[in-house]
Amino acid sequence: MSESTSGRGDAPRLRGVLAPVLTPFHADLSPDGRRLSRYCRWLLAHGCAALAPFGTTSEANSLSVEERESLLDAIIDDGVPPDRLLPGTGACALTDAVRLTAKAVRRGCAGALMLPPFYYKAVSDDGFFRFFAEVIERVGDARLRVYLYHFPPVAHVGFSVKLVERLLRAYPGTVAGMKDSSGDFANTKAMLDAFATAGFDVFVGSERFLLAGMRGGGAGCISATANVNAAAIDRLFRAWRSPEAEELQAEVDAVRAAVEKAPLIPGLKAIVAQHAADPEWAHVRPPFVDLPSAQRDALLADLAALKLAMPDLRG
Amino acid sequence: MSESTSGRGDAPRLRGVLAPVLTPFHADLSPDGRRLSRYCRWLLAHGCAALAPFGTTSEANSLSVEERESLLDAIIDDGVPPDRLLPGTGACALTDAVRLTAKAVRRGCAGALMLPPFYYKAVSDDGFFRFFAEVIERVGDARLRVYLYHFPPVAHVGFSVKLVERLLRAYPGTVAGMKDSSGDFANTKAMLDAFATAGFDVFVGSERFLLAGMRGGGAGCISATANVNAAAIDRLFRAWRSPEAEELQAEVDAVRAAVEKAPLIPGLKAIVAQHAADPEWAHVRPPFVDLPSAQRDALLADLAALKLAMPDLRG
Repeated sequence: MSESTSGRGDAPRLRGVLAPVLTPFHADLSPDGRRLSRYCRWLLAHGCAALAPFGTTSEANSLSVEERESLLDAIIDDGVPPDRLLPGTGACALTDAVRLTAKAVRRGCAGALMLPPFYYKAVSDDGFFRFFAEVIERVGDARLRVYLYHFPPVAHVGFSVKLVERLLRAYPGTVAGMKDSSGDFANTKAMLDAFATAGFDVFVGSERFLLAGMRGGGAGCISATANVNAAAIDRLFRAWRSPEAEELQAEVDAVRAAVEKAPLIPGLKAIVAQHAADPEWAHVRPPFVDLPSAQRDALLADLAALKLAMPDLRG
Repeated sequence: MSESTSGRGDAPRLRGVLAPVLTPFHADLSPDGRRLSRYCRWLLAHGCAALAPFGTTSEANSLSVEERESLLDAIIDDGVPPDRLLPGTGACALTDAVRLTAKAVRRGCAGALMLPPFYYKAVSDDGFFRFFAEVIERVGDARLRVYLYHFPPVAHVGFSVKLVERLLRAYPGTVAGMKDSSGDFANTKAMLDAFATAGFDVFVGSERFLLAGMRGGGAGCISATANVNAAAIDRLFRAWRSPEAEELQAEVDAVRAAVEKAPLIPGLKAIVAQHAADPEWAHVRPPFVDLPSAQRDALLADLAALKLAMPDLRG
């Protein structure tokens, strides 16, 4: 590899609010790199400290490896700073995970957010350890920062405290943190208690848990809803020690509750489509389907009542 | 495309015992096309009517799209007849599923065995219908025969009777059958009762259900254990109407029960490694791990007691 192989223990660590960036598609369902990079810049200017493209909310598991690679190139080549990017690089196939993770490192990304291989279910901690060890050693680059993506409600596999401990011991400095989307704050608390002081940054997977997470030593949140409400979530992140924190938490919770009434990804895309005045934004790849118009109208009305704004998104 | 686009309503339909072929790896975990094609020929000569490479047991979800494509090329170029191949072509990403399925059709395969996209879980029948409709229409070839792979215990998504009915109505002739690995014969029976007389061939996903499946109008079985015991399973398939059928069923059940005591895929590979006198066969990709030697020895002893033989596999 031509890139420097020096470590970057002094690089700033990711903190704050990250959006798992929605992926726009053309009408023929091909990914739209131009709309994506424009939207990435908007998110960074409106509350996101960094971005996690190719997450669950990005429909990344509905994209081929080549599509994920070329979208990453598209946004970085278009000026989105790679040190503010935490792309999803997890995959079921070892070879795919290695390829995507090596690419993220080569492009200078702040880290790689990795789902465990999620097809096979009767997998032991030994098997997951072996998978991550192979990825880290095959990528073989001291700049790599792996963030573990724990999402049992969808992946149906995940990371135990013992597995994280073993990975941290084997690859200190490389294993850098976690996104906990378990929906179970007791699990987040266990991870925070075990590892937050060991340089392992725990992000909650929903802003519902942001205040609790920060009080427990967390690093921020990586949340679907940050695609449409990052400015308010960021206000909570910045003010978590202040007397207004509970009120700010209640405000972002209300928006989240409204968004969650509809199917999440088609709903978020419908919100962006409306605020961008750009109907193309609403396309979703199968297995998702477009939001029925009655459900979309109800969602947009709820959010208008909550005064959700996405300034300057049109253009 | 250069291939003929004529239909093949007169092509023989798949029936009998199919193995979801184990995928051999080199010590560096790269796939071994040479060992695979040799093994495919052995299976076809020892009880398998046809082969389903790139299934769950093949660790196909641990292979990249390129690896699956080049292994398919390797076995066909090495003389394995494509009209006896039902490769797995399902994938989470629409673009991957289209690419793999189109490749199978171009290479003249008898059909394509398709998992539904299995990452996202809150997916409606509408969404799965949309996915399969896109694949079938993008492949756009009258030779395509899609076999639906129903495996909820692992995929955590699947095909309802209503979804199958809708797909059959929209794509008669193309939607050709199902592998039912639900482990629930009541589900298999519902599929058989609804569709077996409509030219929809239901294969049970385990030989445990082979006799019941044949009595209900099924077409055979596609079973992990066919990798090591196809000859006996084929005897049951051929004799299912005979007085010996129950006894033959009990014999294959005993082998299956012995095999199921160990983790399935590492166990099957250990059996092949022993009978082929080829330790390289035992390699598994992560997230699987090699079978501990004590467990391997116990498995092999159990099978020796049951007189499991794999003649002519050495060489």
